[in-house]
Amino acid sequence: MSLHRIGIIGLGLMGGSLALALRRLHPSLQIAGCGRTALIERARALDAIDRGSEHATEAVRECDLVFLCTPVESSIRLLAEIAPHLAPDAIVTDVGSTKAAFAEAAREIFGPAAAARVLPGHPLAGSERSGLDHATPELYSGCAWALTPLAAELTPRQQELRTLLESLGARIVLISPEEHDRVLAFTSHLPQMLSTALALTLERTLHAGSPALELRGSGLHSMLRLAASEPVMWEQIAASNRENIAAALEAFEMEVRHLRESLGESAFRSRFNEACEFARTLRS
Amino acid sequence: MSLHRIGIIGLGLMGGSLALALRRLHPSLQIAGCGRTALIERARALDAIDRGSEHATEAVRECDLVFLCTPVESSIRLLAEIAPHLAPDAIVTDVGSTKAAFAEAAREIFGPAAAARVLPGHPLAGSERSGLDHATPELYSGCAWALTPLAAELTPRQQELRTLLESLGARIVLISPEEHDRVLAFTSHLPQMLSTALALTLERTLHAGSPALELRGSGLHSMLRLAASEPVMWEQIAASNRENIAAALEAFEMEVRHLRESLGESAFRSRFNEACEFARTLRS
Repeated sequence: MSLHRIGIIGLGLMGGSLALALRRLHPSLQIAGCGRTALIERARALDAIDRGSEHATEAVRECDLVFLCTPVESSIRLLAEIAPHLAPDAIVTDVGSTKAAFAEAAREIFGPAAAARVLPGHPLAGSERSGLDHATPELYSGCAWALTPLAAELTPRQQELRTLLESLGARIVLISPEEHDRVLAFTSHLPQMLSTALALTLERTLHAGSPALELRGSGLHSMLRLAASEPVMWEQIAASNRENIAAALEAFEMEVRHLRESLGESAFRSRFNEACEFARTLRS
Repeated sequence: MSLHRIGIIGLGLMGGSLALALRRLHPSLQIAGCGRTALIERARALDAIDRGSEHATEAVRECDLVFLCTPVESSIRLLAEIAPHLAPDAIVTDVGSTKAAFAEAAREIFGPAAAARVLPGHPLAGSERSGLDHATPELYSGCAWALTPLAAELTPRQQELRTLLESLGARIVLISPEEHDRVLAFTSHLPQMLSTALALTLERTLHAGSPALELRGSGLHSMLRLAASEPVMWEQIAASNRENIAAALEAFEMEVRHLRESLGESAFRSRFNEACEFARTLRS
């Protein structure tokens, strides 16, 4: 493998877990981290990184592979910042939740070299908890990891990145950046919006301290899990995938309205049966 | 305690779990079950019941306390059926998901004696799995259990029922049948409708076999858990709590629309922060 020196920019849940997993599975890799000084000290104490810097431009020096592990907009800004400081054959990937805006930025920054230098990525792993303190080397085990190449074929070094991610237990899904964003609007961003809207509905109707809220079960608990996740990340996702999310919400709003209008009627039964079958298939 | 002989009508997840829990904690109780012959045989093999009958009128004979553990509409029908066969001081409760219709039926069937004879109940426990095979004596441990009395005070025997349920680990919440149904429309029925509508949206947009569905994470998994639950039960809930559910859905639809219209704007941030704080409080 030609990937020896790894840079990880952003030492939160995603970057921290990545560092811990790489360390455990590939102890010979040299890992440089970038984050605030306190985070670097904590990451070194956890033996997640070998060296660290507050400056991304310094952290990526001599790296063969750089992971941008920050929210979407920050990763776009950082990509432009580190580009002049990368080794000539270094490749860059990221873990952002939307891909078209990042891919477009890569094309602007690297020009014709973008397809070889940047391979945008998105592991479908996470937690309603954020931060290095919740990082775990198991985070990516068994998760789907989208890679959204800018050209038809992966370069040999990009193939190595793919193999490295598979070694962490990730299932790689190759898809275009645009199709990724369209699909994720339905499979990820829509569920998040519903959980958030559910929390708002309950808060505004029943109020947080209401004794009525004692009357809740595990169903509500699981439906509110996403609403408890970090708002900052979701602002950036909403901004960078606005049209797809709006389309997914409109499709959903139509289904809700039909369900409401069919309450207690025979169409209600067939809708519930259909949804049940689909959900069981997907969860099995 | 004056409750010695217990009848459990319906030996599915709820009734079966109740029988197993009572058996474990109060081995001196005599438990009679009612269900199809195969279920009774299975319940006896699990040592969940002492005796069984396919006929509710037979199963409740000489019981001090009867639990109706069937979906709402069936429980209303069964209440009328068993009423003439109950011992004079026997009390009846149920585990149905809505309470106003059952309470109203109790008043019609028992007249002025209804408040003493019937104490409608609703344990907020369950699973997307149904049936005796998934029953467990732990089902009610730690759950909220609504009791919706028809009069201001519980009778001494109803107090005994309350104590019995608390011994299973349930937290009792006293509330009127009507207020119960209004609250549950928000805390239980609304989350179910959203999960079902989400499943329908995904199925109709991406289709069940779509490779795009590989791109899903644990968030979608938890948001589809409720959609996988038994449709028959939900038909009866929707029919018996139609107006409250429609009102909850309308309130939710307004929140979704506002969220969609604010995608990427500053109101989006404040909505997400508010929802996050509420969800974290409720889940802590």
